[in-house]
Parts: sequence; structure tokens; C-alpha cells
Amino acid sequence: MLDKVDGNAGQAVVEGLRDIAPDFATYLVEFPFGDIYSRPGLDLKSREIAVVAALTALGNAAPQLKVHIGAALNVGCGKEEIIEVIMQMAVYAGFPAALNGLSAAREVFAKHANP
Amino acid sequence: MLDKVDGNAGQAVVEGLRDIAPDFATYLVEFPFGDIYSRPGLDLKSREIAVVAALTALGNAAPQLKVHIGAALNVGCGKEEIIEVIMQMAVYAGFPAALNGLSAAREVFAKHANP
Amino acid sequence: MLDKVDGNAGQAVVEGLRDIAPDFATYLVEFPFGDIYSRPGLDLKSREIAVVAALTALGNAAPQLKVHIGAALNVGCGKEEIIEVIMQMAVYAGFPAALNGLSAAREVFAKHANP
Amino acid sequence: MLDKVDGNAGQAVVEGLRDIAPDFATYLVEFPFGDIYSRPGLDLKSREIAVVAALTALGNAAPQLKVHIGAALNVGCGKEEIIEVIMQMAVYAGFPAALNGLSAAREVFAKHANP
Amino acid sequence: MLDKVDGNAGQAVVEGLRDIAPDFATYLVEFPFGDIYSRPGLDLKSREIAVVAALTALGNAAPQLKVHIGAALNVGCGKEEIIEVIMQMAVYAGFPAALNGLSAAREVFAKHANP
Amino acid sequence: MLDKVDGNAGQAVVEGLRDIAPDFATYLVEFPFGDIYSRPGLDLKSREIAVVAALTALGNAAPQLKVHIGAALNVGCGKEEIIEVIMQMAVYAGFPAALNGLSAAREVFAKHANP
Repeated sequence: MLDKVDGNAGQAVVEGLRDIAPDFATYLVEFPFGDIYSRPGLDLKSREIAVVAALTALGNAAPQLKVHIGAALNVGCGKEEIIEVIMQMAVYAGFPAALNGLSAAREVFAKHANP
Repeated sequence: MLDKVDGNAGQAVVEGLRDIAPDFATYLVEFPFGDIYSRPGLDLKSREIAVVAALTALGNAAPQLKVHIGAALNVGCGKEEIIEVIMQMAVYAGFPAALNGLSAAREVFAKHANP
Repeated sequence: MLDKVDGNAGQAVVEGLRDIAPDFATYLVEFPFGDIYSRPGLDLKSREIAVVAALTALGNAAPQLKVHIGAALNVGCGKEEIIEVIMQMAVYAGFPAALNGLSAAREVFAKHANP
Repeated sequence: MLDKVDGNAGQAVVEGLRDIAPDFATYLVEFPFGDIYSRPGLDLKSREIAVVAALTALGNAAPQLKVHIGAALNVGCGKEEIIEVIMQMAVYAGFPAALNGLSAAREVFAKHANP
Repeated sequence: MLDKVDGNAGQAVVEGLRDIAPDFATYLVEFPFGDIYSRPGLDLKSREIAVVAALTALGNAAPQLKVHIGAALNVGCGKEEIIEVIMQMAVYAGFPAALNGLSAAREVFAKHANP
Repeated sequence: MLDKVDGNAGQAVVEGLRDIAPDFATYLVEFPFGDIYSRPGLDLKSREIAVVAALTALGNAAPQLKVHIGAALNVGCGKEEIIEVIMQMAVYAGFPAALNGLSAAREVFAKHANP
């Protein structure tokens, strides 16, 4: 599930934890990806829309927002849909949050080949 | 659009502003609902999933979270989908945010007849 | 300075701390009011505009927001100016923050006689 | 572990989830209490100090802050220590966060018999 | 209004959106600057004091805080007044928020010639 | 007290304020370190656990989090204890906050020789 959603970015996060908090890598795989993402009640596309929205609104976790913009592309969200989600956050968390979300999206999109 | 998404709750918010900030009611109709919700690039169901996720994660706007849990039901989200979105926020904003979101959902669901 | 800015509300806060954290009442008088508010570089009206803006944007300290909307009235801000500050926060912290700020203002204004 | 830390309050949270999100009750027991609290690297008193500090600083999860002020008492923190932790948050998250944390502590202390 | 308040920084933000979210540039000009800043009930200096306070307190939008510290200078705030606003946020959002706001101010002031 | 807790990092913060806000350096020494840290009701180790927890959870003050991870080491916290505090914040503020806290810890630990 981690591979399917986050691709290489997810593996990089897990690898990066091996030296400092290896058990946390286990929790990260087990709870979010094993328990939550695998649940049948919501499709993966909707799950990533929810995460991109939340991290854009919180505005204090740029690395994870970028991983999940990439994950949204991986599970089938179009770039236009992602932009719409981020723009909508201007209404609920203010224009600065949306502007910084759009900057993150521009950076992630530049590294992805899919249109 | 306001009626379609928020139903009576949206009208109540607009009416409540008439005495203290009538122009703000106009902005609320024009920018979020006129400009953003009407855009074709994302369906209304996904838009409400994004809002429920963001307001659950922020955790500081309970009245608006309840309005949008109701709005999610209005535009076709199932109760199970809404619960999944809120539960997922435990991963991104912590268990307290998700627990308080679930309390809001219980309250809103109790007032809605649809299964 | 506490009396001038917050009036009875400030005294009530200080009194309320006597049983549980009396030293904190001392710090509250000394640092914010003794050190900060007394500084000559910014007038009290601008100071209260800054506080109302910040507490509206943060959205997680409703009791203190109400005290400072009252304080803004006490130091000479007009109701219209306070409403403008709160409305403007929709741009920087989202519409829910502004809506909840306006609710706080309505409640405080109802208790104040000055026009 | 849930019983030891949260006592009846923890059981009440778990019971309250049975109707709306029963699996979330399972996650709540498994990840925070099964995985995290049981780890040997930090004593329970320090864990509760960390939680009371974090929830006071975040300022958007009052019900959970109260549960954990009670939990801090349950695992051996003195009332004075809890007050010190909350007061210290004035430095890192502002006086309103600390004042609201002190109000929560007053309410919880009133229900606990231990000195 | 955008030019008057934000100067070149505002134009740069709008230009930067042309490739990824051109409609958002339109909304940014229309709602905050067309609707809000142009309202007569609050002078521009007070509006920028409110924004600098809010963005300092939120602490999660450094690029926009810098734009608005510059905007505050553009509409006639003195450097001392801006420093006072940011320092005051230590009381309402904690010392870290104020320290990071002061760092932003130092950076912006270094690029501005006016005393 | 500032030297004892923060070591060189604290002095650097104070020095950095001399040009832009010298009085704020005074407040920083007087209120947090003079008033709060010197209080007898809570040991310094517990105080730093509280601060590391709060700044990890808030997620918007990376420079100060790093200073206080160093301060925690200075007053006798073990690296394992600090990692446990940060990991625990995944429960209360989400996995992104904990992941970013762990990155901060890795950076600080690399500069400290003590095991």
C-alpha cells in the first residue's frame, strides 16, 4: 500500500527513519498504510484529496504535502483536480495557505511526466 | 450553489450576518460559492471531502465543520465515507482532531434522516 | 494599564487565577501589560487591532478574543473598525475564522453601550 | 495501559466510539496505548507532561486536554507540576493558550480527590 | 490597490500564478484587494498592522509575512511600529512566533531604503 | 539560567536581537528564563520535555525546536527520551509533525558529542 500510494517518496521516508527511529518506520507502515488506507469505505483518490486539503490548510508540513501531492498523482488524481483542492483551501484556511500549497504543487508537477 | 451545498445551514449563516456584517454575507456567497464551488475541475463530492478533511485537521472551527458535514451529505457523500475522511485525519493531525471530528459527525448525522 | 485596556474583564482574569496559579496573574500583569503595552512605539488602538487580528486568525482562544474586542472598544476603536479587522482575516486565515470572530464581536457589542 | 493512564475517561472515549466508528476505538487502543505508551524509553509521568504541554499549546482540543490532565494525575504527576507545565506554555504558545489550559486544570482538579 | 499595498512583490505573486493557477491570480486581485482593502471603514496602515500581526501569530506563512512587512512600510508604517506589532505577538502566540517574525522583519528591512 | 539551558544557542538568539529589537532580548531573558525556568515546582528535564513536545506539535517554529532539543540534551535528557517524546506527538499532532520533529532531532544530535 505504501508503494502504491507514495511510490519512491514513501520508501525514502521509511529508509530515512532507520537510523534515528526505526520503530517509527514500522508504525508509519502499520497504522496509516496498513490500518487506514486499506479500509474499503473510501477510494484512494478521495483519501489523497483529503490529505492534500488537510496539509495545505495546516500549512506547517511542506515535505509531507509534497509527498502527498505526488501520491495524489500516483492514485489517479489529475493535476487540475489537485489545483482545485488547493485553491479551495483559500476559503477555509486563507490565501497564504493556498499560495504555499500551489508552490508545492508546481514543484511536484515539474518532477512528474504524466500530464 | 449555496442552497445546493449547504441547504438551510448556509442560508442561516448568511442571515446571521445581516445585522453585523452584511457585506461579508455578500463576499461569502460570491467568492467561495460563486467563484470556487462553481468551477468545473472538481466534483462537489470531492470538494466537500476536502473541506471536511481540512476543518477536522484545523480543529478550531466546529460550527463550520458541522455545516460542511451536512453539506457533504447534501451533495451525495455517504456517512461511511465521511467517517473514513475524519478517521484518516488522525494520521495527519492527531487523534484528538479526529475524535472531535467524529463527535461533530455524530451530532450532524443525528439530525439527518438519510441512511 | 490592565484597567485601562481590559477594564473589568482584565481584573476578572487576574482574580480567576488567584486560586490555581497566583504567580501567573503577576506575570500576566508584568510582562504583557507592564512591559509590552506600556511601550511608546505603538498606540494602544493599533495594539488592540493587532491582538484582535491575531486571535481571530488563530481561532483557538475565544474567551481572550472577546476580552480584546472589548479592550479595542475601551481604547477607542469603533465597532466598524473592529468588524473590518475581523472580516479581513477571511483573506489570511479563512472564512471560518472570520465568521467565528464576527460571532464573538456580536456578543461583545451587545454588552457595550457605546455606539 | 489505557486503564492505567486514562482511567474511566479513556473507557468512556472508547465506548463513545462504538456506534459511529468502532474500528477507530480499536486503533486508539492499539497505536497510542499499545504501541507508544508501552515503550520503555520514557516513563509515563514524562509522557503525560509531554501530552499536557502539546495539547495546551495547540489549544484546539479541550476535551482531550482534560482527559490528559486527569491522566497526568493518575500516573503520579502532582498538581503543582501540571500547573508549571501549563504556565510554561505561555512562553511557547502565548498567554491565551496557558490561560485556557489553567481553566481546564481547575475543572479537572475539582473532580479529583488526591492533593 | 495591489500595486499601492504590495508594490513589486504583489505583482510577482500574481505573475507566479499564471502558469499553474491563473484564475487564482484573478481571485487574489478581486477578493482581498478589490473587495476588502478598498473598503472605507479602516485605513490601510491599520489593515497592514492587522495582517502582520496575524501572519506572525500563525507562524506558517513566512513568504506572505515578508510581503506584508514590506506592504506595511509601503503604506506608511514605521519600522519601529512593525517591530512593536511583532514583539507583541510574543504575548498572544508565544516567543518563537515573535522571534521568527523579527527575523522576517530584519530581512525585509535590509532591502528597504526608507528609515 | 539561559546559559545552563540553551548554552551557546541561547546567547546567539539574544545577540541576534541586539540590532533589531534589543528590548526583546531583555524580555526573553527576564520572563521565560528569569521568571518561568527558575521556578522550583518542576525540574529542568521535565520543562524541556514539555517544550520539545509543544514545539513538535505546533510544527511552525523549527529554529526554536532545534534550540530546545539541544537544551534538552544540556539539562540531562537522553537522546532516546527525546526521540520518544517526538514520536509520541504523532498521536496528538499527526505523523507529519512527528516526522519533522525527528528530522530536527537528527540534525541537532549530529552536532552533539554526548551519547
